[in-house]
Amino acid sequence: MRRLRIGLLGCGVVGGGFVQLLESRREEIEKKAEARISIEHVVVRDAHREMRWVDPAILTTDGRDVVGNGVHLVVELIGGIDPAKRWIRDAIISGKHVVTANKALLAEHGEFLHDLAAVHRVRIGYEASVAGAIPIIRTIRHALAGDRIRSIAGVLNGTSNYVLSRCGEGKSFEAALKQAQRLGYAEADPSLDLDGSDALQKIRILARLAFSDAATIVRSEGIESVTAADHERAKARNAVIRLVAEARLEGRAVEISVGPREVCRDSALGRACGVTNVVVVDAEAAGELTFYGAGAGSLPSAAAVWSDVIEIARSI
Amino acid sequence: MRRLRIGLLGCGVVGGGFVQLLESRREEIEKKAEARISIEHVVVRDAHREMRWVDPAILTTDGRDVVGNGVHLVVELIGGIDPAKRWIRDAIISGKHVVTANKALLAEHGEFLHDLAAVHRVRIGYEASVAGAIPIIRTIRHALAGDRIRSIAGVLNGTSNYVLSRCGEGKSFEAALKQAQRLGYAEADPSLDLDGSDALQKIRILARLAFSDAATIVRSEGIESVTAADHERAKARNAVIRLVAEARLEGRAVEISVGPREVCRDSALGRACGVTNVVVVDAEAAGELTFYGAGAGSLPSAAAVWSDVIEIARSI
Repeated sequence: MRRLRIGLLGCGVVGGGFVQLLESRREEIEKKAEARISIEHVVVRDAHREMRWVDPAILTTDGRDVVGNGVHLVVELIGGIDPAKRWIRDAIISGKHVVTANKALLAEHGEFLHDLAAVHRVRIGYEASVAGAIPIIRTIRHALAGDRIRSIAGVLNGTSNYVLSRCGEGKSFEAALKQAQRLGYAEADPSLDLDGSDALQKIRILARLAFSDAATIVRSEGIESVTAADHERAKARNAVIRLVAEARLEGRAVEISVGPREVCRDSALGRACGVTNVVVVDAEAAGELTFYGAGAGSLPSAAAVWSDVIEIARSI
Repeated sequence: MRRLRIGLLGCGVVGGGFVQLLESRREEIEKKAEARISIEHVVVRDAHREMRWVDPAILTTDGRDVVGNGVHLVVELIGGIDPAKRWIRDAIISGKHVVTANKALLAEHGEFLHDLAAVHRVRIGYEASVAGAIPIIRTIRHALAGDRIRSIAGVLNGTSNYVLSRCGEGKSFEAALKQAQRLGYAEADPSLDLDGSDALQKIRILARLAFSDAATIVRSEGIESVTAADHERAKARNAVIRLVAEARLEGRAVEISVGPREVCRDSALGRACGVTNVVVVDAEAAGELTFYGAGAGSLPSAAAVWSDVIEIARSI
């Protein structure tokens, strides 16, 4: 059987799940990938921290160890622009395939990375960057390849949706946010979730894929402005408030908007409660397709990363 | 650009949609497929019937004209076992890729066709065979490749679901069925839909893909036995009756069941009303994923067929 050598950048929540899935079901994964798989290096901040599932001998703190070495594929799960961009760029230039869950990087520099990958004839997988375990990248890329997408709308940020869901039940914003942090749904600094930045990055990634065109951001707003009175008013109309991210074809232009919106409680978007994500794609031939699933979390995201790794492994 | 020559078997509801999609958006489809596409032959029962979108010069009544000729890919949309099986077999043996929406054939002879295709190194696409536009085949095959599926449950037959939905609102079975036929949702002979056979074929296809193992059919029942009293009783419990098709891992065995089941009105399965299909996949890492969409119809199914054709075109 062929070998697939992987270099892993980052071993936090998703990276840890990625290693765990391989160790706990190696046989099935290798069979699907048609390759023997080994993680050769793991780049972490602290090479002395003990980690379950990970052999300490393969830990390193320098990303160059991974991208410059004899691996076939680099999995980037550190997030943020720097040093992720630099390391991914170096990996591509040295002929390595890349799988990433980095929505900030893809939203900002996706075009550059895709062009670079095309030049160097390597592949980039990024199913885990949007909506966790929901296979929305694959759906737009392959399932709707013969169709024409008119709009994509979704609840793509679990943290803000959890807070909105609790506030809709009468909790205060502060209490709902604290609860989200206690349950591990919100980071210590949740501002990128609450101000709409995270949802905006995700919808930009989907818009580029669906419309392969420059999109205009017509609105980008967080959930901080939503008041208890807004929730009350919605409730009286059998509605709920959701942070809706949308990309829509308007004539020949593509418009993106992110912001709180009142939606019917029984609508596809209204039914996404707590940390569940939902994506609704409206396409000319297929009609409306709706997907629900875990939008984040260690194993759901790691499963999405593996789906990309396996697909690339089979194709090379 | 490369050429992709297609032979089309059958030009009914889905076949007509397939031709229509190519003619109405050829440029985008060819760009996605990275090939110039031509439909070289169309096999129909009556070669003298006029058809919109189809050049009469390419019509033929003999499937051997298509599978024996210089096409790269055969799209089979006639349905049923014979002659579809024979023509697909001949196409595979002569090195042609196959895309089919034929659930009866795949449920019965899927193993044989997949083995034959592997021997002759050609590909078989069948996204349109289950749940129309919902990309469930792709999801099981690729998106959950690194995961372990525990169960798949769905409402996979639009006709029976339409009848059940109307009966749940108080209509009689006969009146609901007549309405379904008037709207084109039910065939003149709807017995395969109503007795659960159609749903059973579909869940068998999904079970083979998800569990790649022999499954036991523990129950296969249609909706004829559901009485008005059953609907009333469900309604009183805030529930509805759905024809649920399920494949479930029980220990090391896979059990398949199809039959009417009372489900909560607000559950994922309960929310599939009318001709909408729903599929709920429960996987160890990804958790629960739910998909809603058009389960049948000319263009939704044709879009699924094109997704397979494009994927095969890009890979050859």
